[in-house]
Amino acid sequence: MMEETIKVIKIGGNVVDNPEALGRFIDDFVKLPGKKILVHGGGKEATRMSSRLEIPPTMIEGRRVTTRETLDVVTMVYAGLVNKRVVSMLQAAGCNALGLTGADGNAIRATRRKPEPIDYGFVGDIAPEGVNASLIGSLLDAGVTPVFCAITHDGNGSLLNCNADTIASAVATGTASLSPVELIYCFEQPGVMEDIERPDSVIPLITPYIYKRLRAEGVVSKGMIPKIDNAFAAIAAGVRSVTIKHSDALNRTSGTVIRD
Amino acid sequence: MMEETIKVIKIGGNVVDNPEALGRFIDDFVKLPGKKILVHGGGKEATRMSSRLEIPPTMIEGRRVTTRETLDVVTMVYAGLVNKRVVSMLQAAGCNALGLTGADGNAIRATRRKPEPIDYGFVGDIAPEGVNASLIGSLLDAGVTPVFCAITHDGNGSLLNCNADTIASAVATGTASLSPVELIYCFEQPGVMEDIERPDSVIPLITPYIYKRLRAEGVVSKGMIPKIDNAFAAIAAGVRSVTIKHSDALNRTSGTVIRD
Repeated sequence: MMEETIKVIKIGGNVVDNPEALGRFIDDFVKLPGKKILVHGGGKEATRMSSRLEIPPTMIEGRRVTTRETLDVVTMVYAGLVNKRVVSMLQAAGCNALGLTGADGNAIRATRRKPEPIDYGFVGDIAPEGVNASLIGSLLDAGVTPVFCAITHDGNGSLLNCNADTIASAVATGTASLSPVELIYCFEQPGVMEDIERPDSVIPLITPYIYKRLRAEGVVSKGMIPKIDNAFAAIAAGVRSVTIKHSDALNRTSGTVIRD
Repeated sequence: MMEETIKVIKIGGNVVDNPEALGRFIDDFVKLPGKKILVHGGGKEATRMSSRLEIPPTMIEGRRVTTRETLDVVTMVYAGLVNKRVVSMLQAAGCNALGLTGADGNAIRATRRKPEPIDYGFVGDIAPEGVNASLIGSLLDAGVTPVFCAITHDGNGSLLNCNADTIASAVATGTASLSPVELIYCFEQPGVMEDIERPDSVIPLITPYIYKRLRAEGVVSKGMIPKIDNAFAAIAAGVRSVTIKHSDALNRTSGTVIRD
């Protein structure tokens, strides 16, 4: 019996924020066959809402802190405005989407980050066992497409702010016990490029061996290193492959595939 | 075989808005045995948010209109802030809650109200067949407690604002095909009273026969008549009983029971 792959796809705030890009992405996402999970960001809209509500960003030692007020704003924007907009668009396009935070059905339980050395406020870190694979699996089996925003909970009544990349990675590793999982990060670049100025310089495949060479040659830019490291961490935790590609290219063989 | 009853419980904005009252209600709700569904309002918080965002309420012929901007605010507040707060509190209290708008899993499909004679904007009306009893039934069978806010969708990509009382009534009638359904409206009064000044004047039971007498005697206040009419409409559509009681009295035999 061939096991069906689960695709976990993450889109960032830039796609969510741009009605045309979002519309194109939704059309492509709906066409994607098989079991799939969407994870979305929404940072820009939250920043706009904070500024309209005159909530200043709280920074400590250059790091953004999630105060109670900020948590309320991101909960409103991510779990309310953005999540329900995406869900209703997917429903209209024929995809049976269902929006979730980590609190819903206890889908993802996180731990509030320790207050030392910096208290980041209501920010959650996710352990792999925090992902409720059984809930996600039964939704997928019922033909439902879970749509996650970056809000989780601690199980003790507090919501927590998370990073959408981290949610995507946690959901991918947490469901790897169910089926082979492909994790796909969609953003506004065609993939990991040798030269950031040349879209045709996308590196199609990065294995640990190739990665070693690229780093030795100084080809991979500094900003990409943590992303690729995280991708290898997801692979070490059971994810089959991680793809980094343009949000317009979901159904095309393109971008950078990272695998063992 | 005895069929298990489904309880559909509605709490209004006054309970949601008051942390102590909400905490007490959550404790009682969690203790309620069997299958249950929660529907919540949240109007006051939406009004506060609109005023902070300097969105003036749009009124046409004395009726509130849901503009695009207002729809965004109620989506943020109902589906984001309030729904996720209630879900995380229920999760902390040991109830496996999962928050839903009508768009999620196409749980409730509504129709945008006709623009004549008054265009109410993004306001939805729900037909009984708009309720996805199969989704709700499978969530209940999986031990999940659905928590609905008053946002639905039209299936064509637009979210719609609804009334929480209407959502509760639609969910109750829509799931009556699955099991016997009890619909319970919790608010800040002990029930339907003969004398609004006397909490001990609660009318314990209203049947069509008693209702006729109460109306003939002018005992039921004008504001209560549409509520009771709606209760009888739900009963005619298959709901077993409708109870109107205080939000602090969920687990006590109290309030007004309306039945055939």
